[in-house]
Amino acid sequence: MSSPADPGKTAFSSGEYAERLHNVRKAMHQRGVDTLVLTDPSNIYYLSGYEAWSFYVPQYLVVRQSDLIWFGREMDRFGASIVTWLRDDQLLAYPDDYVQNDGKHPAQLLAQQLKDRGWDRGPLGLELGNYYLTVNAFQLIECALPNATLVDCSLLVNWIRLVKSEAELRYMREAARIVEGAMRVAVEGVRAGVRQSSLAGDIYQALVGGTQEFGGQYASSPPFMPSGDRVATPHLSWTDAPYLPSTQTNFELVAARHRYHVPLSRSVFLGAPSKELKSLESAAIDGVAAALEAVRPGARAGDVEAAWQKAARRHGVRKNARCGYSIGIAYPPTFGEQTASLRPGDMTELAPGMTFHLMPGLWQEGSSIVITEPFVVTDSGAELLCRFDRRLFVND
Amino acid sequence: MSSPADPGKTAFSSGEYAERLHNVRKAMHQRGVDTLVLTDPSNIYYLSGYEAWSFYVPQYLVVRQSDLIWFGREMDRFGASIVTWLRDDQLLAYPDDYVQNDGKHPAQLLAQQLKDRGWDRGPLGLELGNYYLTVNAFQLIECALPNATLVDCSLLVNWIRLVKSEAELRYMREAARIVEGAMRVAVEGVRAGVRQSSLAGDIYQALVGGTQEFGGQYASSPPFMPSGDRVATPHLSWTDAPYLPSTQTNFELVAARHRYHVPLSRSVFLGAPSKELKSLESAAIDGVAAALEAVRPGARAGDVEAAWQKAARRHGVRKNARCGYSIGIAYPPTFGEQTASLRPGDMTELAPGMTFHLMPGLWQEGSSIVITEPFVVTDSGAELLCRFDRRLFVND
Repeated sequence: MSSPADPGKTAFSSGEYAERLHNVRKAMHQRGVDTLVLTDPSNIYYLSGYEAWSFYVPQYLVVRQSDLIWFGREMDRFGASIVTWLRDDQLLAYPDDYVQNDGKHPAQLLAQQLKDRGWDRGPLGLELGNYYLTVNAFQLIECALPNATLVDCSLLVNWIRLVKSEAELRYMREAARIVEGAMRVAVEGVRAGVRQSSLAGDIYQALVGGTQEFGGQYASSPPFMPSGDRVATPHLSWTDAPYLPSTQTNFELVAARHRYHVPLSRSVFLGAPSKELKSLESAAIDGVAAALEAVRPGARAGDVEAAWQKAARRHGVRKNARCGYSIGIAYPPTFGEQTASLRPGDMTELAPGMTFHLMPGLWQEGSSIVITEPFVVTDSGAELLCRFDRRLFVND
Repeated sequence: MSSPADPGKTAFSSGEYAERLHNVRKAMHQRGVDTLVLTDPSNIYYLSGYEAWSFYVPQYLVVRQSDLIWFGREMDRFGASIVTWLRDDQLLAYPDDYVQNDGKHPAQLLAQQLKDRGWDRGPLGLELGNYYLTVNAFQLIECALPNATLVDCSLLVNWIRLVKSEAELRYMREAARIVEGAMRVAVEGVRAGVRQSSLAGDIYQALVGGTQEFGGQYASSPPFMPSGDRVATPHLSWTDAPYLPSTQTNFELVAARHRYHVPLSRSVFLGAPSKELKSLESAAIDGVAAALEAVRPGARAGDVEAAWQKAARRHGVRKNARCGYSIGIAYPPTFGEQTASLRPGDMTELAPGMTFHLMPGLWQEGSSIVITEPFVVTDSGAELLCRFDRRLFVND
């Protein structure tokens, strides 16, 4: 009942799903958790292959040492039967009048399912830090299961996702090809007079339309592409204004293949960049090189940040935010894995197969630059996922 | 301290923001809530104009009868100063080491801010049903504010958003132009042999690139465009497979202007549709017409569904899910307002300015069809937001 059958339809082999599940069950055992209820769509996908934009309604993957059950909305069950490796009797559903209907919540039915199976006793793990388990749902579960001890298992599965297999890396390399193509569209297309939203449309086409060989998916974030006075802040959207001469645009793009995300960022200046900006460019380039140099198995995540910081400081630059984070499977609203960060004090030991976005975006009064590199930790150092000139781009 | 200054930079007039705030404060007073802490990005945008993809980290809008404070991430504060009408002293921020860092959570700093101001006593409203208030954050707030009585204010602001102003309707009409254009791209582009992901890229370009007059934004959902055996389920993504002869594709598209969303759905068949499908088409068309006929001020949301159901039944068709929902401002992961639904028992009284997506998607063993209409309730009935042939499209 617990092992993946040979799938054919899923993105990974049955052996790979079995290993993932084995690792999660081992971690559950170590934490003393009998039943784990997952709500993070990335973790549900990682274990079951369930891939759909249905996480805006409650859905759960229940993991036990010898059971695995998907519990979602009735209209999504057929989708689950198409894309997951689970058998039909592992796919349970709740009726549609439990969707956004006052007084009825799917968590009540989940609790009943757990009770019916006798799984409501002992330690029950929930992802209390995840977007897709609301406080309301949690309170209903807590109230309905007085015999369970609720345990926070946030990020338990995320940490297991940290090291990627060859099959996972293959998808990330494909996503890297797509994001390179989209970045070419961005760098070529940003010209004085072009409407920002029109270029955004072209970038989306490249991110989703993909390459000749394969297409992209919706990513867990839109392209970030602030321009003009907006480059001083990272998360604002494009507008309908035209790009103006003597201004800068920061492109932070991200492409997805089989939900594996690869981001890439570059800045483009229209006209002649200032001395300050050229100096920031040097700092960014030296910092990235130094950070990549520090990547090797056994090094700590924090060491990579320290190497970056040291190189950047020689240029008089400091950055107060982390300069990178683990990447892989993602669903909105974020593409970080929310585990290891390249920041002071992060003691995560780097190991082959880990993937990071080295993202030392620099925002300094009046100036900013983004030059980033997604990379894989290898046996001996860092393998770049993208090949894209590491510099400030300048258009006439 | 509480009234919007003249904005210039925001999407609405200062008078409109003042009225929104007034209505929310009235509702707070009626509920006996002294302090309301909002986390739903749509509600934060509605009141402050804050528009950024930063909701993947905690951010809060604190509303009191005579105060209004935005509390977000340090690197987003400058963005808030650009796009909101709030003064600088209303924009508070937490440092970056509180982002996804074990043991540090912005909710702790929020609680401290409330305490420092003496706002930690009495009834404190929180959106317990929203994605962007995690259980962890809630527990930290609960623990840090023993003198507060926490009250669930989920959807309090959403309900106030139900009736749209003329300024809001203007943006929705613009979004309607964009989604029509994208649907034309879809209906024209779906041809046997075309790769699904390539068409998805073209559709994105139309949704974001917009029209000659104005561009689009990222929407709160991707285009849904299942094809072949996937049309039996609504939320799966496109693939890299080509469209095949004698198969159907269901396009559910959504466009956004200033975060106001307008969705539109149509089905396209490649080849000669079966008699069953033609019959389903008739049911859908008659059902939509009957539902629109039932729309008028004073009617109940449930009445519209009943009219739809009655017409569809004459064709032997039943639908178990709701056939529509309120639309307006949205952020991922959903574009419904989560308030009024066109479904049995929904007693919401229709009033001029309400906007709905009439979405009677039909999934019936082997067959499905989506023909939908976004509409505005007017003084005398329903005004269609889109002009798009209401039929099953058929391509060679």
